[in-house]
Amino acid sequence: MHQLVLLRHGQSQWNLENRFTGWTDVDLSEQGIQEARHAGQLLRESGFEFDVVYTSVLKRAIRTMWIALEETDQMWLPVVRHWRLNERHYGALQGLNKADTAKEQGAEQVHIWRRSYADRPPVLAEDDQRFPGRDRRYASLSTVEIPRAESLKDVLQRFLPYWSETIAPQVRRGNRVLIVAHGNSLRALVKFLENLSEQEVVDLNIPTGIPRVYRLDAQLNPIAKSYLGDAETARKAAQAVANQASLEG
Amino acid sequence: MHQLVLLRHGQSQWNLENRFTGWTDVDLSEQGIQEARHAGQLLRESGFEFDVVYTSVLKRAIRTMWIALEETDQMWLPVVRHWRLNERHYGALQGLNKADTAKEQGAEQVHIWRRSYADRPPVLAEDDQRFPGRDRRYASLSTVEIPRAESLKDVLQRFLPYWSETIAPQVRRGNRVLIVAHGNSLRALVKFLENLSEQEVVDLNIPTGIPRVYRLDAQLNPIAKSYLGDAETARKAAQAVANQASLEG
Repeated sequence: MHQLVLLRHGQSQWNLENRFTGWTDVDLSEQGIQEARHAGQLLRESGFEFDVVYTSVLKRAIRTMWIALEETDQMWLPVVRHWRLNERHYGALQGLNKADTAKEQGAEQVHIWRRSYADRPPVLAEDDQRFPGRDRRYASLSTVEIPRAESLKDVLQRFLPYWSETIAPQVRRGNRVLIVAHGNSLRALVKFLENLSEQEVVDLNIPTGIPRVYRLDAQLNPIAKSYLGDAETARKAAQAVANQASLEG
Repeated sequence: MHQLVLLRHGQSQWNLENRFTGWTDVDLSEQGIQEARHAGQLLRESGFEFDVVYTSVLKRAIRTMWIALEETDQMWLPVVRHWRLNERHYGALQGLNKADTAKEQGAEQVHIWRRSYADRPPVLAEDDQRFPGRDRRYASLSTVEIPRAESLKDVLQRFLPYWSETIAPQVRRGNRVLIVAHGNSLRALVKFLENLSEQEVVDLNIPTGIPRVYRLDAQLNPIAKSYLGDAETARKAAQAVANQASLEG
């Protein structure tokens, strides 16, 4: 039986400011830091040990990971950062205020961009300051790999190869893996692991800062899943995400 | 021409308490955190960019690395932790108060343990709580690799293979490498890079929290070396280390 723990980073500065974030490298807010610390404490109280940690190249996930390692006294663990674990790229919406965008484009359009499975937000131009090809951390990506805007479906397509080729073999080898990532990269993984439909993954809300623990069989099918800590707290946190959907971007 | 930057972690809690540390996983003191922050600021002010970071599996180096990445806004960089970058293992002295040990064993004996090239401190028994074989982070080491006490010469012998096989190829490939490590693992590397004699490396004092910058030719021979920031500050910091030798363990 194998173990896998997923952790979604908490509130970032732009969640707080109600702006679309995506690949923008925004740090955690004070509340986000508290959420990460709480997550680390939950892991410590349950005695979780890991062998390897995967995270994105975005600092809100990396700082959450740092805090979790600190709280569980496992700062020495090998950590692998990879862009394929990044949040969904929000295209030309990145940086815009969500309320302003809803006023300009209509609430329904914004709802589609945020909650549909296959619809992409408006794409970024290549000469846009926000184009990832201008950031040296993405210098190793080929032109087709660099996103200009992503749907949740796109996130699945770029995250799953990394899961299958890199992370899953570690889990199968018996290594206890912690993944610290983002709302949409984690939804992509959960869709795959739990074999959810497109509608089910659109309706799935992963609470921030609450570790999601899987027990998996040899084929990496889930035998059991749970959130650490108080069940009611986890349910409310997921509901809060569903209600605002304000942490999605 | 290649670039390599070395950074020695600052004061730890046990430096402050005047205890032999070695592989004991002690965190930075408040002053050590300030030193790391200052180092990060020096790197930022000089516009240093890196491609990959190497550090030990000890949290005083890891936290120094975290702070340097944070200050230079490069939290996304790939980081590799390896036990071969660890501080010298201080054997059965680990945890003892330095002044008490000098009283019991004689100041001259303690001086030899601390400042000779090839003398080892008293070895740890395998059933000692402090034996690294009991710590799961060293589970992948073979019996002969697990130290029970190390001389500076031993540190060279276990660090240089990692330099030659892993880090040096990265530098040769043109990647800009940052190494965040310890007094003795860094002295081992400097001895090799600068082709120092045994006596010269024993007399070498690397200040804490001040980045040491090398420009290297294609064969990785140093063309230039310098400390970042104010030269007088670096000289005084090295002198302070020489005088107390209290940060060596």
